[in-house]
Amino acid sequence: MKEIKLSTQSYKGVRDFYPEDAAVQDYIFTTWSKTAKAFGFARFDASLLEPAELYKAKGAENAEMVNEQTYTFIDRGEREVTLRPEMTPSVARMIAAKKRDLQFPVRWYSIPNLFRYERPQRGRLREHWQLNCDIFGGDELAGDIESIALAHQLLLDFGAAPKMFEVRVNNRQEMRSLYENLGIKDPATQNKITQLNDRFHKLPRAEYCTQLEALIGADTAQKVLALLENPESSLATRELVNGLFELGITNVKIDRSLARGFNYYTGTIFEIFDVSGENNRSLLGGGRYDNLTALFSEDSVSGVGFGMGDVTMRDFLETHALLEGRVKSIAPTLVIIPADPSHNLAALKIAQVFRQREISTAVDTGEKKLGKKISDAAGASILYALVVGQDELQSNTYTLKNLPQSTSEEGTLDTLLTSLIVAL
Amino acid sequence: MKEIKLSTQSYKGVRDFYPEDAAVQDYIFTTWSKTAKAFGFARFDASLLEPAELYKAKGAENAEMVNEQTYTFIDRGEREVTLRPEMTPSVARMIAAKKRDLQFPVRWYSIPNLFRYERPQRGRLREHWQLNCDIFGGDELAGDIESIALAHQLLLDFGAAPKMFEVRVNNRQEMRSLYENLGIKDPATQNKITQLNDRFHKLPRAEYCTQLEALIGADTAQKVLALLENPESSLATRELVNGLFELGITNVKIDRSLARGFNYYTGTIFEIFDVSGENNRSLLGGGRYDNLTALFSEDSVSGVGFGMGDVTMRDFLETHALLEGRVKSIAPTLVIIPADPSHNLAALKIAQVFRQREISTAVDTGEKKLGKKISDAAGASILYALVVGQDELQSNTYTLKNLPQSTSEEGTLDTLLTSLIVAL
Repeated sequence: MKEIKLSTQSYKGVRDFYPEDAAVQDYIFTTWSKTAKAFGFARFDASLLEPAELYKAKGAENAEMVNEQTYTFIDRGEREVTLRPEMTPSVARMIAAKKRDLQFPVRWYSIPNLFRYERPQRGRLREHWQLNCDIFGGDELAGDIESIALAHQLLLDFGAAPKMFEVRVNNRQEMRSLYENLGIKDPATQNKITQLNDRFHKLPRAEYCTQLEALIGADTAQKVLALLENPESSLATRELVNGLFELGITNVKIDRSLARGFNYYTGTIFEIFDVSGENNRSLLGGGRYDNLTALFSEDSVSGVGFGMGDVTMRDFLETHALLEGRVKSIAPTLVIIPADPSHNLAALKIAQVFRQREISTAVDTGEKKLGKKISDAAGASILYALVVGQDELQSNTYTLKNLPQSTSEEGTLDTLLTSLIVAL
Repeated sequence: MKEIKLSTQSYKGVRDFYPEDAAVQDYIFTTWSKTAKAFGFARFDASLLEPAELYKAKGAENAEMVNEQTYTFIDRGEREVTLRPEMTPSVARMIAAKKRDLQFPVRWYSIPNLFRYERPQRGRLREHWQLNCDIFGGDELAGDIESIALAHQLLLDFGAAPKMFEVRVNNRQEMRSLYENLGIKDPATQNKITQLNDRFHKLPRAEYCTQLEALIGADTAQKVLALLENPESSLATRELVNGLFELGITNVKIDRSLARGFNYYTGTIFEIFDVSGENNRSLLGGGRYDNLTALFSEDSVSGVGFGMGDVTMRDFLETHALLEGRVKSIAPTLVIIPADPSHNLAALKIAQVFRQREISTAVDTGEKKLGKKISDAAGASILYALVVGQDELQSNTYTLKNLPQSTSEEGTLDTLLTSLIVAL
């Protein structure tokens, strides 16, 4: 009777990270961390399990996300729990809890995994990781400039040139004033325009106009369209863009259609886009929120921050060939090969010498023949091989093979260890 | 009308990592990674969401864990999904999927978070992280020795001395032979003894004896007790212990009561314990399994590995005062302080100079007075402060204050940057 075997597929919409992919992930996370730390940010973290009320509290506007797109379930103790779909509510909770002990401005970053129940598609999976950087407190304009400068520097630190991407900025508060100047005073109508504008770059122009006219009539629609197509900067946005120019950041565009999904933004909002046309989703997005901790306490803390996903990041790096030569090898540096199984223990002892000097060392105790082990090691990008047999042990003289160069060096273990340390 | 505010508490049994705690976590994870890499292990990862069948398939013996201790729920697409309670089934799934492409022996490690629905207690939370290291394929004895040698080295690399901990080893297969030699041939009875032995060090001796006698009668019970209290090593265990001694690992004890919870172990099993008496839970545990990938395919792969949790690890490091001076500072190296808000942008520009040289630099644009900002920076363990005002900008001469030493240096930005790079 044949047993039924389990599938080796992962759960739908999530990823297995084999060492090759884990190495790319490591490279992305390490680069994110290094740049965030250079900007004086400290890492924090929280559990991905959060009370469901944390996301429900943000109001009915998020009903779609909470009701249809989160992983929410009842635990065995009857608590309603959600796998976090975003990090901002968790960081707001943590800031609110320690508000009195913290010295503002606070600069925090984290690299959480986030969960959404969605149909998987390019750049969008059910689980992804996201760099989150937030500045709480401090001067608002300076914070907005610094937040965008950090986002910009993150891309430069991956080797991107400014011409590969574009920063688009807008301001929620200004948009409200601009709408009011055009006679659109009803906040619900303003929100509907914002939602429509979110699709401005995706819809055909005529289609956009038809929908806009249906909302506010042809005359006003023309004026809104003029606003989007010929954006004049008003004071706050001009100051922001000027500040960025002062820092040498010039690939910046005011985009009045920029909406951002989350309702908690109150001032500056921004996104960064790949200009190659290969990746339509924004590389990162963020903005200023003035009342996020108000869910937890009477006194609120203002902040500005952004999130940058690993899936879109990797797509961007691959599109622009920015991964080559930057991801660390997953192969050990050295493999010790016992000539036959009776030398396994001797091989482990020799490995110990190299391992204690932090030289990544494997021991190949498999059943293959010696020659095959050496050629497999070369094929797996291992740099050095050292065979251990009776002769080597008796003479205390070993041969260190440099596999890519097909050269070798003879000597005692001490000699070879020294020459390896020098070579690496 | 006062709004009802949300609690700032995290979900029960999980942790918030404020920067101080995240830094300890970073230190633990970095040390784990460094040692695993020195042993030639490559990092892999998988999603914490797995099909529930992956855990159910292991058989009815795990019913308690699957039915009462996992987070299992039905997703919106009617799939039954589990938050992984351990990593071994995921790694077995991944190895089985790529068996033909992999070169054995394979050395893989990962640092997943794991979930159990349990009452939180010392050393045991609902979410914890665990270093997992496995060797698949290769010689069995050499793999067992290497796995324990890695576990041992991990503790040394945290600064632990061998006298602080103890490796306890046993062998599942040998225990079966030993029981059979004593006339205990029924596998169910053998399993019951194994389960009871798991509590040998926790129960009073008399209580243990009573329960053992109830299982197998007084005479045989005496013999089993003798086996536990005066363990003689049989061949496999002796070879293992001798091999470890050859590598200089001598804090090893044969413990015939050692049982390990998981049923998939088939040979060597081991745990490492803190000998201080402060931490009763094992620091790590593992063993050899010969049939794990058999769930997925006809041909199985043999392996040996262990898991080491972050909660017990941190408890151990704190008990033995092994964290002091080893955890990186969460404070930025330098803070730029604008003399008043009109100099915020100039401060950001100056920060950019230091940040591009990877010197962790914050900008304090808060509303506090200058003197207070400087004393707060010192209190927060920031090493250097640099004030930017009208005089500094006009003269291009700045003062770099060394906060812990209360000294200062004057110069142009270039001079100060150079002297900071030299000092760090």
